[in-house]
Amino acid sequence: MFVAGRSADKIEQVAKTIASKGGSADAVVTETTREEDVIRLFDHAMTPRAGLDSLDLVAYNAGNNRKLDFRELSAELFEDFWRIGCFGGFLVGREAARRLVPLGRGTVLFTGASGSMRGKPGFAHFAAAKAGLRMLAQSMAREFGPQGIHVAHVVIDGGINGDRLRLNRPEIVQERGEDGLLGVDAIAETYWQLYRQPRSAWAQEIDLRPYKENF
Amino acid sequence: MFVAGRSADKIEQVAKTIASKGGSADAVVTETTREEDVIRLFDHAMTPRAGLDSLDLVAYNAGNNRKLDFRELSAELFEDFWRIGCFGGFLVGREAARRLVPLGRGTVLFTGASGSMRGKPGFAHFAAAKAGLRMLAQSMAREFGPQGIHVAHVVIDGGINGDRLRLNRPEIVQERGEDGLLGVDAIAETYWQLYRQPRSAWAQEIDLRPYKENF
Amino acid sequence: MFVAGRSADKIEQVAKTIASKGGSADAVVTETTREEDVIRLFDHAMTPRAGLDSLDLVAYNAGNNRKLDFRELSAELFEDFWRIGCFGGFLVGREAARRLVPLGRGTVLFTGASGSMRGKPGFAHFAAAKAGLRMLAQSMAREFGPQGIHVAHVVIDGGINGDRLRLNRPEIVQERGEDGLLGVDAIAETYWQLYRQPRSAWAQEIDLRPYKENF
Amino acid sequence: MFVAGRSADKIEQVAKTIASKGGSADAVVTETTREEDVIRLFDHAMTPRAGLDSLDLVAYNAGNNRKLDFRELSAELFEDFWRIGCFGGFLVGREAARRLVPLGRGTVLFTGASGSMRGKPGFAHFAAAKAGLRMLAQSMAREFGPQGIHVAHVVIDGGINGDRLRLNRPEIVQERGEDGLLGVDAIAETYWQLYRQPRSAWAQEIDLRPYKENF
Repeated sequence: MFVAGRSADKIEQVAKTIASKGGSADAVVTETTREEDVIRLFDHAMTPRAGLDSLDLVAYNAGNNRKLDFRELSAELFEDFWRIGCFGGFLVGREAARRLVPLGRGTVLFTGASGSMRGKPGFAHFAAAKAGLRMLAQSMAREFGPQGIHVAHVVIDGGINGDRLRLNRPEIVQERGEDGLLGVDAIAETYWQLYRQPRSAWAQEIDLRPYKENF
Repeated sequence: MFVAGRSADKIEQVAKTIASKGGSADAVVTETTREEDVIRLFDHAMTPRAGLDSLDLVAYNAGNNRKLDFRELSAELFEDFWRIGCFGGFLVGREAARRLVPLGRGTVLFTGASGSMRGKPGFAHFAAAKAGLRMLAQSMAREFGPQGIHVAHVVIDGGINGDRLRLNRPEIVQERGEDGLLGVDAIAETYWQLYRQPRSAWAQEIDLRPYKENF
Repeated sequence: MFVAGRSADKIEQVAKTIASKGGSADAVVTETTREEDVIRLFDHAMTPRAGLDSLDLVAYNAGNNRKLDFRELSAELFEDFWRIGCFGGFLVGREAARRLVPLGRGTVLFTGASGSMRGKPGFAHFAAAKAGLRMLAQSMAREFGPQGIHVAHVVIDGGINGDRLRLNRPEIVQERGEDGLLGVDAIAETYWQLYRQPRSAWAQEIDLRPYKENF
Repeated sequence: MFVAGRSADKIEQVAKTIASKGGSADAVVTETTREEDVIRLFDHAMTPRAGLDSLDLVAYNAGNNRKLDFRELSAELFEDFWRIGCFGGFLVGREAARRLVPLGRGTVLFTGASGSMRGKPGFAHFAAAKAGLRMLAQSMAREFGPQGIHVAHVVIDGGINGDRLRLNRPEIVQERGEDGLLGVDAIAETYWQLYRQPRSAWAQEIDLRPYKENF
């Protein structure tokens, strides 16, 4: 398995966790908005290795979110959100298509948000990027599905019960209570089930939210 | 498990198949568009039984489809499609909510179609019913999710590789080839995975189609 | 012009208002959920009259709304909402198609609501009917557009500044302030503009809401 | 009126046409993807002029479309489509909001396409940009509507009966026949009607297509 991300610390931590549970993972520092990084990552990941099947699952999960005052929003910030939320997904999706289509199999999963389908005040920058990513996923699904590549878009709607929220906003974790935030393992399980779907019944889009989430 | 349907022959066949695989199923003849039948089915299914957990998964799967000339469509036929495609879902959904909400848990799954989101020529009757069922599922999900009931809508897009198509339109099965139609087991697996989702990450809607399906 | 509705008083009042402004309108008592009433209305309206062009604009505007407890909702009430919200639209839409398609021109407008696209708690009955009406409009548009019939769906999102609200809930009118509710003339103007659209650029769907409305 | 665009020739031609019909228009060469150009355009347009009301209608109409092979698509081209299709809309939308919100009135119209709501094979680059623009319009509408600014998104679905198509693909004009392509005047009329809508009934989204268009 390959864990790619901007921060060496973070992805090595993930790789170690995987190793500690008996798995095996390579941490590859990657700036997903830089074309050469993405190409290098795929070159590395697709290199045949003794005893290993070739790569066949790609998950694009980059992104962040923040409410911002629209009239104060700088052009740079609007662009940054697009780079990480949409452009990086294009680079990864294109490389995945280039490598997987010739093999006739593989799964490419993109992570969306409620902003993928709806623009709320203060989130134009986020929704514009995420809706773009969703269209990318749809176009890829329609084009590459018949060639054996499963492309799906997972709409993650709600706060994630992970380190970021627990550290920065412990009061939210408290307030929502158990299962009131999206469980990391539960999200991962859905990605895994998407990967496992036989090609006779592929999902293109699924939404996930905690049972208490207002939507 | 309870298998409910209009035709005793069909549902007993299903019950036998389940029994032959080591499961156990009651066939209950039910006209899903008749309120008293649906209530009786739930009365029966919710009766406590030694050694059995109480019912906690309901799947509404009734419906059929047919292209019809809109200008020739009789009021009766338009209504029939709604009765089976939407009204029966209401009766089942309401009974499920009545019985499950007090328990604070349970899963209710509704089967949709591409007509649930889009009206094509010759399918007004079908789309009107299916879109209604989808709204029913959404309303229930929004209302009963926070009370612990998982309500999801599964959009089945494409022909199903089942008896109906194999008997009536063998040429389509031929033409689409292996995995070109929706596999029954693959569909069932997705319903099962929805049932298994922990409440920290519930799906409300998912679409399923064969890899070759144009959409 | 023909004003059709269930209550003779109301529609005669409308006809009088139209006459007082120099127009001319026939009030035709019609139960829109009764097939023979709808057919009779069209028979009447399509009868050639000296000095008058034949009918070429049909607007289906029936319906009401009310929040209802889902678990207490009777089968009869669920059906009633569908009869007025969707089935009556089918009867009117079908008659319109039967009469207008041979002429190769005409406009059919259906009135929707935010419930046409989204099911909220306590509104399953309303959303199921309205989403059905929307699919009916879509199917008709796709089928009859190329035959010269303009079919559009107008999503009315918000309270209407009309008699019903002013009499029953004057506090809302007060609270929203001027232009905070949908103006009747403003709605009518949009219907009029849809009617006026040349066939080289027809709208199929448009939403209308007051500037203050949260959506 | 101000006509802004990349090519001096084109916009001066438009300004001349307007003048020849008794109107008055300034052609302002503007690269809509360049922040300083957009700011300068608004500075210019918002300068009070004797005998003229201040600007209160902004239409963002930039963009182009082309089917491209996804796997061969360069990062530069993907970005270019976003710059013109979405980022330029952000720059214009933000400047419009900055200038109009303090006045408490004004209309901002964005031009969409069927790609705004759906990603087709070979159009990922276009759909990703257009869906982003749509979310921008939605966010702005939700935020600035209550402050008196009308923001709407017009989905233009189909070929436009304009110079580009008539010069480059005369066979399409031929094949579609009269009214089979979107009329420029008919489109303009809809923009005009949106501008004229009173704030008691504003449209946020409308789609336009020729009567023959398949959708």
